[in-house]
Amino acid sequence: MELNTIEWKKDTLVLLDQTKLPNDIVYVEVQTVEKVWDAIHTMIVRGAPAIGVTAAYGVYVAIQHFEGSVTAAKEEVQKQVQYLATSRPTAVNLFWALERMEQKALQIDTNDLEMFQDILLQEAIAIHTEDIEINRSIGEHLLTLLEDGQGVLTHCNAGALATTKYGTATSPFYLAKERGMSFKVFADETRPRFQGAMLTSFELFNAGIDVTLITDNMAATVMAQGKVQGVIVGCDRVAANGDVANKIGTLGVAILAKYYNIPFYVATPTPTIDLHCPTGADIPIEERSVDEVLKPTGQYVAPADVKVYNPSFDVTPAALITAIVTEKGIIEHPTEEKVRAIFN
Amino acid sequence: MELNTIEWKKDTLVLLDQTKLPNDIVYVEVQTVEKVWDAIHTMIVRGAPAIGVTAAYGVYVAIQHFEGSVTAAKEEVQKQVQYLATSRPTAVNLFWALERMEQKALQIDTNDLEMFQDILLQEAIAIHTEDIEINRSIGEHLLTLLEDGQGVLTHCNAGALATTKYGTATSPFYLAKERGMSFKVFADETRPRFQGAMLTSFELFNAGIDVTLITDNMAATVMAQGKVQGVIVGCDRVAANGDVANKIGTLGVAILAKYYNIPFYVATPTPTIDLHCPTGADIPIEERSVDEVLKPTGQYVAPADVKVYNPSFDVTPAALITAIVTEKGIIEHPTEEKVRAIFN
Repeated sequence: MELNTIEWKKDTLVLLDQTKLPNDIVYVEVQTVEKVWDAIHTMIVRGAPAIGVTAAYGVYVAIQHFEGSVTAAKEEVQKQVQYLATSRPTAVNLFWALERMEQKALQIDTNDLEMFQDILLQEAIAIHTEDIEINRSIGEHLLTLLEDGQGVLTHCNAGALATTKYGTATSPFYLAKERGMSFKVFADETRPRFQGAMLTSFELFNAGIDVTLITDNMAATVMAQGKVQGVIVGCDRVAANGDVANKIGTLGVAILAKYYNIPFYVATPTPTIDLHCPTGADIPIEERSVDEVLKPTGQYVAPADVKVYNPSFDVTPAALITAIVTEKGIIEHPTEEKVRAIFN
Repeated sequence: MELNTIEWKKDTLVLLDQTKLPNDIVYVEVQTVEKVWDAIHTMIVRGAPAIGVTAAYGVYVAIQHFEGSVTAAKEEVQKQVQYLATSRPTAVNLFWALERMEQKALQIDTNDLEMFQDILLQEAIAIHTEDIEINRSIGEHLLTLLEDGQGVLTHCNAGALATTKYGTATSPFYLAKERGMSFKVFADETRPRFQGAMLTSFELFNAGIDVTLITDNMAATVMAQGKVQGVIVGCDRVAANGDVANKIGTLGVAILAKYYNIPFYVATPTPTIDLHCPTGADIPIEERSVDEVLKPTGQYVAPADVKVYNPSFDVTPAALITAIVTEKGIIEHPTEEKVRAIFN
């Protein structure tokens, strides 16, 4: 069964309610701008690309049933863009998508309200389609680095549930499925928040992809046993020198892969590469609530007052990365020179 | 507050009920042989050394209030030894302690029942004291390898709760505390069963030792940040060539330590060294229930039907081990020759 994170169905935005996963698969119709705001705010939809696409549709939803002049509709768009921007204050893709929709609206030169509305819908669909194409392209590049039937380990969730289709790190698995090829995927559960269990193992299992869930500390053993020929992870930020910030645990997996001489790939759209950030040392590491460690699913597993260290991300140095794989191409053994070259 | 896993208090065996940890600290008085059997069977007491000592006291408890001839008492000992041996069918230390108590009973040359009983109590106390001495000795050797104030990472629980005092891997932390020294201990939570959280972080926190709980996948980060100058783990079995089987995740920590040039120590009593087992490849790896991974504390974090791989142990090759530390001395950079030499 294919899961659609986001779908424009006839004239309605339909979202997979990710707060109900992995126990229930529930789709919600989102027919007002307030409901779009809620969906982003309450994490019914999550993952930077998916949030951006949802917000773009949200701008259209805001004026879908508008009555009045095109001028008034443009004012309404500006107002609702400001409103939607408050749904998740730190989501860069959200602001980017909203600004693109607003600029488009202001540029439309017509007095025909229906045409105005339709152009905005087409822009939202374009943002949606571009995200799918970026992920497909990352997947195509990754497929050139893998062989049918190999074991591939992934960490956290850089999957279809965080994007609109395919995901980034998971893209080759979905493309392989479409083509009758297959990989044996190992998904690290990814403590403390279990994204590898709750999201990655869930979405691949639902798509009929061969996935095996392991705890994070079993990665060394599956590598030692020869079950894994490649590692693919997503990332939150790439520094100009090729250092990569990603979910906690990524660094450890990269070191294990190096020890066992297994290629370690980072899948990422080029907008995640931050040329203004010189090295991984310049990326601040957020610490999250101690409760994520102390209470894995609500029940204490340690004394409530014990000291806990809970960094949310870690930084993998470029020297441990076999290749950074983007929609524009593959950066093998990344260096600052090669990272900058991908943009030319 | 010091926790006593096992205590002989006046004329009663007192056990810390480990099934109630880490939420409640409850001591139970165990006054009949049936209650000793139950305590071992229901894991009120756990850890090979602690089970052996409990069983030894159990033999005395069985004849503590016996009335009749010494000959009849000896028959009673033989009967109750067989009974106690059924409490945990695979526990080697259990059989060893019971056999030692039985041999002692059969050798006692007296018709004085009170003297017979007292000699058996002294034998149980001797087994108890010897365990404490072994752990203390391991700790003394480990202290020669560490410096006051260092950060030390440990995995799983090879602590006081698995033994009768000090533990093996944790022994230097307790000895340091007695001497006004201190280490900054990092405890991996140790998925899937959380022994590092539930037991290690708990017992060290209760003893007033500086301990910080992390998830397993944060070990690389604390090493990268320079917070750790040594790793100490316990073990389940040492092969003749120095390969070590221990709780899943140990291998990964050893590889990370190697990458960061941090010494990796294995703490173990010599009886855990199995000279009949040539290498780590000859140690069978038990797989446990998928539910341990799927339901961390009772609630599903992944689809119930997803494939899970759950090996309980892994094997760390001797090449990754800086030293195996026993009560008889330190085996640096273990090889078969050096491992055999420790017994001479």
